[in-house]
Amino acid sequence: MARTGRRPGATQTREEILRAAREQFAEFGYDGATIRGIARAAGVDPALVHHYFGAKEQVFVAAMRLPFNPAEKIPAIIAEHRDDPAEAIIRFFLGVWDAPETREPLLALIRSAAGHEDAAAVVQGFMNDVIVHRIAEEFGFAPLRAAMIGSQLFGLVLMRYVVGVEVVRTADAEQIVAIYAPAIRAVIEGGDA
Amino acid sequence: MARTGRRPGATQTREEILRAAREQFAEFGYDGATIRGIARAAGVDPALVHHYFGAKEQVFVAAMRLPFNPAEKIPAIIAEHRDDPAEAIIRFFLGVWDAPETREPLLALIRSAAGHEDAAAVVQGFMNDVIVHRIAEEFGFAPLRAAMIGSQLFGLVLMRYVVGVEVVRTADAEQIVAIYAPAIRAVIEGGDA
Repeated sequence: MARTGRRPGATQTREEILRAAREQFAEFGYDGATIRGIARAAGVDPALVHHYFGAKEQVFVAAMRLPFNPAEKIPAIIAEHRDDPAEAIIRFFLGVWDAPETREPLLALIRSAAGHEDAAAVVQGFMNDVIVHRIAEEFGFAPLRAAMIGSQLFGLVLMRYVVGVEVVRTADAEQIVAIYAPAIRAVIEGGDA
Repeated sequence: MARTGRRPGATQTREEILRAAREQFAEFGYDGATIRGIARAAGVDPALVHHYFGAKEQVFVAAMRLPFNPAEKIPAIIAEHRDDPAEAIIRFFLGVWDAPETREPLLALIRSAAGHEDAAAVVQGFMNDVIVHRIAEEFGFAPLRAAMIGSQLFGLVLMRYVVGVEVVRTADAEQIVAIYAPAIRAVIEGGDA
């Protein structure tokens, strides 16, 4: 029977690559890890890693089981809501985090970054390179300003899902959007830094 | 030789009470722990706990080695800068967190709340009762709005000190004040929720 490109064991190979990727990211950080090193640790050719996942960024997204690639999703939201991205960003963010199936892998990553310096280094590298710098450049933001939007969103994660402060945990998503969108807008539109 | 009120072993007794308090908070949460229970666990009279520390809130502040009591400090800052508390709050906050001796105990508490559900319950109880509700009431804020200011500040902690995203970690405090004060002001002044 002819197989259409999928080798037997492809699923295992993918899993083996992702396992190796998690190890390499933990050992060398996001910046230090390479496709070549991940391939070597998984015992496969670097071209196969690229074939399955793409660039290092996509390997990271798959390895950390992120529900989407923020480097693609966030610019798409901003582009779609050019007039007022703040409200769209916070609404999308709450949608992702309020749904248990997308929340769980993100929560695991945050908990691990808060508790372990290795994990913190991985998250910091990805956020700094991909989220802060790349997205900021694309939209002509100061990188610090992009990071401060991230800071507001991560604070919300801490209050609503990690620590679970009652008044935030039980609030309706739209109540949070109403209070927080103007704050995110203030960072986006502020012109003095 | 006459002693002036300090019994021998007072330091040990204080430490014993604080140790008992940490255990009681971890076991019963902030809401569930009582001065009576802490006293019993420390083998002392409840009046002695009150004599050394005051109310449960002050026992918590001492037990967690917080550098100050936020329930007293934050209202003082707001009262002192009635016209524009946002900038004063963020500048004070950065001062506390940028100094290693005040940062360390706070960082320990955050790390532990992020990684352990018991610790998260303790932090959530204190923040909900003392920071969110009491301060919000005092200044006529909606509690959710007070919590969203906390959310912005905790996000900053995550980005600058815990994960340490480079562009935030290395930023000058005044750069952060310039970007973040308008965002905090937007939450304070927004009238629609």
